[in-house]
Amino acid sequence: MRYSKLFGKTTKNITADADSINAKLLTQAGFINKEISGVYNFLPLGLKVLRNIQQIIREEIDAAGGQEILMPVLSSLESWQKTGRDKSWAEVLFCLNNLVLNPTHEEVVTPLVQKYIFSYKDLPIAVYQIQEKFRNEPRAKSGLLRGREFNMKDLYSFHLHNADLDKFYDEIIVAYKKIFKRLGIGERTLLTYASGGSFSKYSHEFQTLCDTGEDTVYVCEKCNVAVNKELIEELNVCPQCGNKELKEKRAIETGNIFKLGTKFTNAFGFKVASPDGDLDEIVMGCYGIGPSRIMGTLVEVFNDEKGIIWPESVTPYKFHLIGLDPKAEEIYNLLNDNDVLFDDRDDVSAGAKFATADLIGLPVRLVVSAKSLEAGGIEVKERNNTNINIMSLDDVILKYGKAR
Amino acid sequence: MRYSKLFGKTTKNITADADSINAKLLTQAGFINKEISGVYNFLPLGLKVLRNIQQIIREEIDAAGGQEILMPVLSSLESWQKTGRDKSWAEVLFCLNNLVLNPTHEEVVTPLVQKYIFSYKDLPIAVYQIQEKFRNEPRAKSGLLRGREFNMKDLYSFHLHNADLDKFYDEIIVAYKKIFKRLGIGERTLLTYASGGSFSKYSHEFQTLCDTGEDTVYVCEKCNVAVNKELIEELNVCPQCGNKELKEKRAIETGNIFKLGTKFTNAFGFKVASPDGDLDEIVMGCYGIGPSRIMGTLVEVFNDEKGIIWPESVTPYKFHLIGLDPKAEEIYNLLNDNDVLFDDRDDVSAGAKFATADLIGLPVRLVVSAKSLEAGGIEVKERNNTNINIMSLDDVILKYGKAR
Repeated sequence: MRYSKLFGKTTKNITADADSINAKLLTQAGFINKEISGVYNFLPLGLKVLRNIQQIIREEIDAAGGQEILMPVLSSLESWQKTGRDKSWAEVLFCLNNLVLNPTHEEVVTPLVQKYIFSYKDLPIAVYQIQEKFRNEPRAKSGLLRGREFNMKDLYSFHLHNADLDKFYDEIIVAYKKIFKRLGIGERTLLTYASGGSFSKYSHEFQTLCDTGEDTVYVCEKCNVAVNKELIEELNVCPQCGNKELKEKRAIETGNIFKLGTKFTNAFGFKVASPDGDLDEIVMGCYGIGPSRIMGTLVEVFNDEKGIIWPESVTPYKFHLIGLDPKAEEIYNLLNDNDVLFDDRDDVSAGAKFATADLIGLPVRLVVSAKSLEAGGIEVKERNNTNINIMSLDDVILKYGKAR
Repeated sequence: MRYSKLFGKTTKNITADADSINAKLLTQAGFINKEISGVYNFLPLGLKVLRNIQQIIREEIDAAGGQEILMPVLSSLESWQKTGRDKSWAEVLFCLNNLVLNPTHEEVVTPLVQKYIFSYKDLPIAVYQIQEKFRNEPRAKSGLLRGREFNMKDLYSFHLHNADLDKFYDEIIVAYKKIFKRLGIGERTLLTYASGGSFSKYSHEFQTLCDTGEDTVYVCEKCNVAVNKELIEELNVCPQCGNKELKEKRAIETGNIFKLGTKFTNAFGFKVASPDGDLDEIVMGCYGIGPSRIMGTLVEVFNDEKGIIWPESVTPYKFHLIGLDPKAEEIYNLLNDNDVLFDDRDDVSAGAKFATADLIGLPVRLVVSAKSLEAGGIEVKERNNTNINIMSLDDVILKYGKAR
């Protein structure tokens, strides 16, 4: 992609939420633009990152047995009245006469699955979607971390027995760990114990350690798990090993999983025929992870004073090619257009091009200049490394690969 | 994919809108399920079709120079007040205090592009998205053809001169023709002249001829174009050749393109620096095509008394493998799982499996039975053909390919 043609160039002119690094950097670098409080436009670079995050999640949830569906934004208030969440969630519910903008989809997925599943033989079943959610946050803030309109992957599983739910729940913990690892935040994202509600002793969050996070967690460094703030008051030790030396750290909640028991299935009278001909209750689990919030989290975690530093797994392009010599055109044409953002502008100084590259934060910067060509090739610098090397194009492709 | 595990099996029990073939067949075949009037859930099969349609559109709009972005569902009522469409569109606008659920995105895209484009040098620019739209249709009906929540590809282009807009507009006509051809409805989808509004003599719709369509068009069989009902009253001839022998036909509007002139850019005071330092007005075009409506249209066009007949370009799977012999498992394992829906159920009659295959409508039915194996292989029947052949698996793959 030629940077001269890209919609959404870097800008220092657009004011972003001053309270968050991700809003500031993503806005200045041309990834997102705020429409109204808590509601963002995704520009071409930002949409590519969002899609890459979604695809990693999709692949791992598919592998764990989830089937992708797409439920609507709108549902009927009546469904929310059946579960009583029209009242308990009233504060964040966007209501429009008898319609709800879904802030989560238990009230949609439960009666939907009920229409197709009649027998114990059809269980377990797990369906998920990647869809926008809406919450009327009184204080939308922190860029992509807390929006009024935001993107979610929400998975729902239905089981005949708690033992089967427990097994699937543990499999999703494993899938989530794979997802966070692929996103580049595996080591700093901890399975975090939270209060369980009526149906299980604990639920779990995934908390990504980050100094700018709004959550506080208590980390057991022996087990590499954490306890959230709500639970720590009743449980002052690591729930896995009993360790009392928990370290207080800041974190961002990037995922959560929850055993819902029969709360929603019973509210809709969803039961199935059992082997002996009775009707059996169904237990349910829900598993959330927010791609747009992940995008904000990655920027909060991976940045420096110059800009963003994208993990290779989600970057919009692998290479940022800076042309300071006509020969750069030739090298651009030899690379895969999907791999490279080519700063071909001729009315911008070299210094401004370097600053743009650092702000956008693609993994590998390639500079083609009279100087680099004289030295034998392309000047190569990784965004998260200070070393600068001169390499031939063949060696660049050999080292970094052509396609992600 | 094993049909025994698929979420959303065929059903005759779920009532669909009686007034439309697409709602009836898509619901019975397990592609969609109505949430509330004009709002649908997409089940795994339906989501695959929707994605395939979106991807064809994406590829052709990318090739025509559009850059994909993602604008939000929510925008501020204030933007709609600036253009006056809070009043002129009041009937279909979902409003929620000071927020609008966008029924189209001119009020979002114009001020967004204005933030990044300052000079004539940055024009033309064209951005698009594939996003849900919301219209409070008083009579939502006809399944996916007229929803309250529906999927749209909306492209917006910005130009310094009408001549440049005209050129791009013609390029999009070409791109749309490619899209409809790839969707399998190229021959029956006609460029249709419509009234132009204040800024051009004509705008254009794309109308797909279909006996169940709710629109009436007047076809010039010499030029293979049509005139819509609104325009025919003032223009009783073909606008291309003057032919007076226009044939009245039923059709579904599957796309529309429109020159907007300065209506929206002026409402937001969006001008750019001209070469001589003045501020120049900007003209704009918009280009819509609805993937969910296309999905409904394909079913209205391609069906018979037994069910749907999917075009190969959008089908969720290429092969419908019916197992009537244990050997079918082996053949399933040799095919690419993304290519094949395998009816592996052992509690369903052969007749029911054949009926399911016809209802779902995948392009190629493969039957593995004692009889087919005795005859030397797999019984192969195309959904839109009555011939039945016995072929080896190698020959099936040779003839139909392994991946789409």
